[in-house]
Amino acid sequence: MRTSAANAQLALLLEVTATPKPGNVDRVREYPDLRFEHFMAGAVGASQGLRMAAAGDPVGESFERAVEGMADQRGGNTQFGALLLLTPLIRAASGGSGSPSDNEELTPERAARVTEATTVADAAGFYRAFEHVDVAVDDPPADMEALDVRRGADAVPAVEERKLTLHDIFERSADRDGVAREWVSGFPRTFAAADRIAALDGPVPDRAARVFLELLADEPDTFVVTKHGDATAQEVSAAAQTALDGDLDPETLADDLVERGVNPGTTADLVAAGLFVALERGLDV
Amino acid sequence: MRTSAANAQLALLLEVTATPKPGNVDRVREYPDLRFEHFMAGAVGASQGLRMAAAGDPVGESFERAVEGMADQRGGNTQFGALLLLTPLIRAASGGSGSPSDNEELTPERAARVTEATTVADAAGFYRAFEHVDVAVDDPPADMEALDVRRGADAVPAVEERKLTLHDIFERSADRDGVAREWVSGFPRTFAAADRIAALDGPVPDRAARVFLELLADEPDTFVVTKHGDATAQEVSAAAQTALDGDLDPETLADDLVERGVNPGTTADLVAAGLFVALERGLDV
Repeated sequence: MRTSAANAQLALLLEVTATPKPGNVDRVREYPDLRFEHFMAGAVGASQGLRMAAAGDPVGESFERAVEGMADQRGGNTQFGALLLLTPLIRAASGGSGSPSDNEELTPERAARVTEATTVADAAGFYRAFEHVDVAVDDPPADMEALDVRRGADAVPAVEERKLTLHDIFERSADRDGVAREWVSGFPRTFAAADRIAALDGPVPDRAARVFLELLADEPDTFVVTKHGDATAQEVSAAAQTALDGDLDPETLADDLVERGVNPGTTADLVAAGLFVALERGLDV
Repeated sequence: MRTSAANAQLALLLEVTATPKPGNVDRVREYPDLRFEHFMAGAVGASQGLRMAAAGDPVGESFERAVEGMADQRGGNTQFGALLLLTPLIRAASGGSGSPSDNEELTPERAARVTEATTVADAAGFYRAFEHVDVAVDDPPADMEALDVRRGADAVPAVEERKLTLHDIFERSADRDGVAREWVSGFPRTFAAADRIAALDGPVPDRAARVFLELLADEPDTFVVTKHGDATAQEVSAAAQTALDGDLDPETLADDLVERGVNPGTTADLVAAGLFVALERGLDV
């Protein structure tokens, strides 16, 4: 039986394997400077941080280590958001023991307890993770400039002075960031994605590709909002719905979005997290 | 910097990512019951055994653990031969310390010292690995029936009675098995593949696909010999040469061999091992 850390690594690999996943790197589509093999190397590099989370090391420190390892390839940011979802989920699944996971144990309630228990030190670890890789983020509100994640470790004194936990940080960005929203609300879309992946038939990557479209149709991708604005994000979600309705070939949509450089990365992160939960609950590959 | 165990895992992932790799599962071709995601899960599952090898655990025991973990997916044998090459190479690269690898250290001589130092207990571990997965192998010569690997753990008493080390075992099959031949001769094709991968330009999976063709053209694949006979193996190697000469589209050859179920698996194992050596020597992904 796989450990929780191994399930998390497999989730990362299955996510990028799933195709078509319109706009994102997958088995048959990539960007010139962000290729499939960068996601392979990212998943390998993240391994030590994932094992730290399973062993009960602090969430922030485990996440920073996972990101540092993930970034040890030439593609840049491959799985930052996915690791941010996976780290507390691994903790919730493993109970911090690092032993093979108990299929019964991973629930939204347990996951919420992990995020609610995060500390100021966890927030500092999160900020330090930005030292290792460039992540596309929005400008913060005016009253949060000192907490701009792009400041990386330089923002840590402000975080410490205001005694903000990692949960506190994400409460402040939940309105505009889909990963943060999961963090402060018991991971509702992650667990829903896991249920859908488990309920569908066929090869797991095919199920993941389907659930990617469903999540994308369901809500605009916040990473697309950040990079291209609300209108584009809503247009992409409408197109995903059209594909689900059978009125647009998902392969055509995928070609179009890659051509335009529009990648719904947050939705891909949710799929990775959903795959992890499904694997923890006994999904066979 | 990646550890040797991490480089080995990445080598497994890059190998299956490389396309076209005529006859084998790759990013765009698979068999109904042996799919791309089974190789992802195999590489994840092998991780603990790879780390054991890097930490200095016995070769046979590490290999058995790697195979047991690899087999924890529904596709069956995905990377048995690759793990058999990687296990001693990891030991040679890490010096058994498990620490980040020293780029200068992995040489054919060091690798040969590891295989020459294998014990009867290592041979027993190798036989026990066959308990975890079905591997296509030839009938043994009449005087080696007691040592038939398909007997798995049942063959261990005969191995112990004859005091055969794992190196001894492979000397007896080197004439008909390309992995065994590497084991007893300092891994010449593995190191040659690594040099070629390092010398070529472009994305690493593309280089690996090219080197796969070169190795296949250079020598008949012994796994194809076992499953389909000498004539087919020689025909496949000739076709690989035709592809290298530009007179046959490798994609066409790939479609044809998958259609016929002819998979040059030993050549893929050599590519995985060559990728590992190249990564150890500083290849960037």
